[in-house]
Amino acid sequence: MRVLVLGGDGFCGWPTTLYLSDRGHDITVIDNLSRRKIDVDLEVESLTPIRSIGERIRAWREVSGRSIGFVNLDLATEYDRLVAVLAELRPDAIVHFAEQRAAPYSMRSPQTKRYTVDNNVRATHNLLTALVETGIDAALAHLGTMGVYGYGWSGTAPIPEGYLTVKVPTPDGEIEREILHPANPGSVYHMTKTLDQLMFSFYAKNDGLRITDLHQGIVWGTQTDQTCRDVRLINRFDYDGDYGTVLNRFLMQAAIGHPLTVHGTGGQTRAFIHIRDTVRCIEIAIANPPQAGSRPQVLNQITEVHRVIELAKLVGDAMGVDIAYLPNPRREAEENELNVRNDQFLALGLQPTTLSEGLLEECTDIAARYARRADPTKIVARSVWRAGMETADDLLTAVPAQAEAPVQAEVPAQQ
Amino acid sequence: MRVLVLGGDGFCGWPTTLYLSDRGHDITVIDNLSRRKIDVDLEVESLTPIRSIGERIRAWREVSGRSIGFVNLDLATEYDRLVAVLAELRPDAIVHFAEQRAAPYSMRSPQTKRYTVDNNVRATHNLLTALVETGIDAALAHLGTMGVYGYGWSGTAPIPEGYLTVKVPTPDGEIEREILHPANPGSVYHMTKTLDQLMFSFYAKNDGLRITDLHQGIVWGTQTDQTCRDVRLINRFDYDGDYGTVLNRFLMQAAIGHPLTVHGTGGQTRAFIHIRDTVRCIEIAIANPPQAGSRPQVLNQITEVHRVIELAKLVGDAMGVDIAYLPNPRREAEENELNVRNDQFLALGLQPTTLSEGLLEECTDIAARYARRADPTKIVARSVWRAGMETADDLLTAVPAQAEAPVQAEVPAQQ
Repeated sequence: MRVLVLGGDGFCGWPTTLYLSDRGHDITVIDNLSRRKIDVDLEVESLTPIRSIGERIRAWREVSGRSIGFVNLDLATEYDRLVAVLAELRPDAIVHFAEQRAAPYSMRSPQTKRYTVDNNVRATHNLLTALVETGIDAALAHLGTMGVYGYGWSGTAPIPEGYLTVKVPTPDGEIEREILHPANPGSVYHMTKTLDQLMFSFYAKNDGLRITDLHQGIVWGTQTDQTCRDVRLINRFDYDGDYGTVLNRFLMQAAIGHPLTVHGTGGQTRAFIHIRDTVRCIEIAIANPPQAGSRPQVLNQITEVHRVIELAKLVGDAMGVDIAYLPNPRREAEENELNVRNDQFLALGLQPTTLSEGLLEECTDIAARYARRADPTKIVARSVWRAGMETADDLLTAVPAQAEAPVQAEVPAQQ
Repeated sequence: MRVLVLGGDGFCGWPTTLYLSDRGHDITVIDNLSRRKIDVDLEVESLTPIRSIGERIRAWREVSGRSIGFVNLDLATEYDRLVAVLAELRPDAIVHFAEQRAAPYSMRSPQTKRYTVDNNVRATHNLLTALVETGIDAALAHLGTMGVYGYGWSGTAPIPEGYLTVKVPTPDGEIEREILHPANPGSVYHMTKTLDQLMFSFYAKNDGLRITDLHQGIVWGTQTDQTCRDVRLINRFDYDGDYGTVLNRFLMQAAIGHPLTVHGTGGQTRAFIHIRDTVRCIEIAIANPPQAGSRPQVLNQITEVHRVIELAKLVGDAMGVDIAYLPNPRREAEENELNVRNDQFLALGLQPTTLSEGLLEECTDIAARYARRADPTKIVARSVWRAGMETADDLLTAVPAQAEAPVQAEVPAQQ
């Protein structure tokens, strides 16, 4: 298949690009490198020493013999170039990761709130409009989030895959209707994914676009079978208070002896998936699109459910570090149960990587190996989600001795 | 009250501005005059000879002795100026009309689809962000649309005011939940109002903003008690295929002897409201805001329900013109029943203007009086809502003799 990967330089996008290329698909990445530029502004860096997109693509060609195209293009503002690229490449499938994806970043300031909405809504809507304008009937797979559902909205009932069957009262009794699950986002970022859902519904109905929305859990892990083939292919690993996802943050904190930072009581139950399963899910999704005229297909892209505090204890006990309880910025229940359906991916052949398998490898291969690159002043989240909110001070401002692992040898001279 | 009217130069905005000023409120209009600029691009004009916003405001001061402020500002792109205006004026209430509001225009081309989404989403989100940033606790009333609900979604059940009580199955039986009514928009324009709803829900929950969303029916009529005090205060009247709302279009078509253009069978049932009731509803809404911490209040701003074909027959029989059936661009049922709740406005004191009272006045005072200004080539909708859609030819390209009413006397020399 000819596949466009929008946002193909990012944390999920890059491993997906390599996986799909390795599986024989013809890949072009579209990315404006915004994720790297946000790091510049936040004065942080990936814990892992990621290479430029050009070097990544050259390294992949050396290692695999396969070419990957790259177009530096801003989907939100360069509509005419997007149309030209689509018309030239005529993709069979499009994977859409090209959105600002950090909840804390989306709540940092008026500017980041506005950037998140303006960028994400326009990127998605420009893409939909361009598909209609060019008449390209590609399978579109978009990365959504479990956060569109809210957590524990209907008590003990499992969260369905996108659509919920409800009974609606009528004068004559009641009727059954299948509705898009009510939205209950916890941040401006999550809110943009609920806006995406409504745009997908409209363009599927009005124009017959074939769309799959993947409501992903929290991703953990760093490497895939492809990204670990050469150090120049390494995936990014974010540990900062904005972009670090919870489990990766715990692993890095443990590696440098920093207390594990838990927001609130840690009683929040969340759904997780390893990055290796993310890339498999994407291929399954584009190989199994809905038919034209169908409503968007929604798949829950998760494999396990855990309470945050349990993960912290697991990592903390194994590595001998304490837990620090910080104020929870989100307006949410302190504790929740979570029961999420993921029947569709399992039926389509996904074989999950479990936390018990992958955790040790992450600790040794990534977090401990690159610990010296960590800046402990960037660990605590700085975003004030609403007026008058408590925030926390830095817990550790110097890198302790056990983090002095020899990492320089991993970095080639030209970097 | 100190009130900002965003979009205060438009079809609903201008009469609202004058009504609120007349009622003793201190009004500032914010408008980028985009509605007038779109007319320039479409090569159409209001049937009524509207004056510049400056002349309108000067005339109102002469007539009423009351001043109205005006700031030419683009809400979607001039965020910092918006913050400065809010901080300076510290309004008690804000009325938000500042969105592209025509469904056919929103489906005309890739550019108008993108403009509608980019403008409407950013205008609304910038406003919400600016209220949070400035800490201004104003009552915000936003003009939504009945079109967010879709028509006849739940069969014979009445459309509630925003929220729907449903039963959700659980492992132990079922639970009742009140949800935002599922969205089923029929155009990109209507879709943007469903996006607004989700943004309002988030900012009400996270930041305690006090928001009322007014799901308005199709507006008809032109003048209010204020706009008819001086010819320089006259409200706009749109009759073109993009911006003309159905009943006003029929009245003008009848006045020039053009067949009444009905899309599909005309079996669509829709909700209506006179512009005089719109302005009253707005004042009621800002005088009765929800409490901070509440979900957005949703009021259905409608007074009557009619089938489109019945309205066409009513006007056609009275004026002796035929009906022309054109292809329906919307993907919707040919016929639907409609039962809409509007209990809240009635309880708050609204006394509706009925169609039977106001129709004759509109025919004589507006449509017939200004008929000579009509351009018959602009009547038929040109938008292709989806690939392969049928469109209609012009039905009349010369203005017939009966439309030669002497209108020049109404237009002062300086125009």
